[in-house]
Amino acid sequence: MSLAIGLVGLGAIAKAQHLPAIAATEGVHLAAIASRNATLPDAPSHHGLTEMLAAHPELDIVSLCTPPQGRFEQGMEVLHAGRHLMLEKPPAMSLSEIETLRETAAQAECTIFATWHSREAAAVEPARAWLLERKATRIAIAWREDVRKWHPGQEWIWQPGGLGVFDPGINALSILTRLLHDPVHLKSATLNIPEGRQTPIAADLTLCAGDTPVTAQFDWRETGDELWRITIETDEGDLAQLDKGGAEFSVNGAQICRGNNHEYARLYARMRDLVAQGQSDLDLAPLRLVADAFMTARFNTVAPFDTEAAQ
Amino acid sequence: MSLAIGLVGLGAIAKAQHLPAIAATEGVHLAAIASRNATLPDAPSHHGLTEMLAAHPELDIVSLCTPPQGRFEQGMEVLHAGRHLMLEKPPAMSLSEIETLRETAAQAECTIFATWHSREAAAVEPARAWLLERKATRIAIAWREDVRKWHPGQEWIWQPGGLGVFDPGINALSILTRLLHDPVHLKSATLNIPEGRQTPIAADLTLCAGDTPVTAQFDWRETGDELWRITIETDEGDLAQLDKGGAEFSVNGAQICRGNNHEYARLYARMRDLVAQGQSDLDLAPLRLVADAFMTARFNTVAPFDTEAAQ
Repeated sequence: MSLAIGLVGLGAIAKAQHLPAIAATEGVHLAAIASRNATLPDAPSHHGLTEMLAAHPELDIVSLCTPPQGRFEQGMEVLHAGRHLMLEKPPAMSLSEIETLRETAAQAECTIFATWHSREAAAVEPARAWLLERKATRIAIAWREDVRKWHPGQEWIWQPGGLGVFDPGINALSILTRLLHDPVHLKSATLNIPEGRQTPIAADLTLCAGDTPVTAQFDWRETGDELWRITIETDEGDLAQLDKGGAEFSVNGAQICRGNNHEYARLYARMRDLVAQGQSDLDLAPLRLVADAFMTARFNTVAPFDTEAAQ
Repeated sequence: MSLAIGLVGLGAIAKAQHLPAIAATEGVHLAAIASRNATLPDAPSHHGLTEMLAAHPELDIVSLCTPPQGRFEQGMEVLHAGRHLMLEKPPAMSLSEIETLRETAAQAECTIFATWHSREAAAVEPARAWLLERKATRIAIAWREDVRKWHPGQEWIWQPGGLGVFDPGINALSILTRLLHDPVHLKSATLNIPEGRQTPIAADLTLCAGDTPVTAQFDWRETGDELWRITIETDEGDLAQLDKGGAEFSVNGAQICRGNNHEYARLYARMRDLVAQGQSDLDLAPLRLVADAFMTARFNTVAPFDTEAAQ
């Protein structure tokens, strides 16, 4: 038996990751898509979620790849239609929306899965296992990329609820909260918001996990290569690096693990298993840290930023 | 048997509410206080929490009335000392701090109680019971007060983590989330931050509970009398008002309930009962809505505000 998936939102992430991942995962198949603008040659294509649900009573799962600002209403519609729900990160625009989705899914006896794709990166689990046997004394996150390269034309990231540089930064936070045994809490945050915009282009966080201090620097103004790196110092004097967004792990300069990217295939396999087991997976820790950063932030206004112009 | 309470922070709220409430509550008594500046003639007074804990091994409960920015570290110290913990609202500066406190309390087998004093206002429970038998079609919160009158000299409310106008506004949100059966989620927020400050002086929220729309207007720039009112319209055409911060409830102009303020005495009675039952009470819903408001806000810069000058 194979679970029928309906995909909503056919943007960059759906094309680059979700469609190949669904095709590569046993036990699931793409049955339909819904997109305002795009169609697929080899799957029934609908203009909206409502039409897709009505046309395909056989859909078991709806997977949302739309921007977070509209995801709550779509998620509620999916759950009210009795279908299982899979959510791109962040699972909704706000924590209270997610709590409402959680209660609705429980009432509907549907699976809800808030995915954090970076947790499935090849070296995250080896790094977590390595760290389990040691004590981290200091952790530093550096997450820098060129917003013009990675988010071309995505106006929603600059709108309220779009999270700005936390859209990539939450990937780092999702890895951090998976790596560490102790719960992570925020101590302070500085958010740099370009003049005339609503979301930060850069953020500096100080966090804490047990008595381990953690710093995080997120910056979208990088014009060179992206840097997605978590550096870990231990009480035995080791210096470890989880690099390239979780794909590579090295200790004292020696590579321990480097793997291919199967992040989204692992997410769809997990969704399949959650549905089979009648369970849900809705970990709010990464988005909670982002909400805390906004709530306790020192706000700086920085220079206006032109998303179009090359520098 | 009476539970021994140590009180930390001897500011306005401690003097006006906590001390009389402890004196009025059976089964608890004030055993010591800790305050940087103030002392009490009739209770052992210490300069800090650490000294108080060391000097009073008989303390069962520590009640924190300090500003939220330092409450996490104090709360962790209390729990690590194996004492039960009672927290003024908001329970900490951030949601992730509270999750860490929750886990620490569970490990220490201590009670943790995040209080929301406005929920104990005289007319809240009658209003909730009345609403249980009806359907609200529209709810409007108006929470306006003069910050110069109600928070004189409290610089912490303007610092990052001080929440600004959400310090009183969270009282309204704590009542709202108690009144309604459906979970409440945030839809959008506009935060008005005075030039040169870090926290909002006014906020407009749109929220939703099931399919009931809720609006909330918080404003600290009121120069007349304070207005702390929740207006409820029902599908039977009733117009109800929960007024004066929850003290009075009227329907179609007729007063249903008006009671004296026993908010803090009820909180200490509940703390006593939670300790006796080995339970905790840590409802994050009000602070989650505040965090969501910051995370998804449209930020406006408004005129500078002088906390000292009369207008």
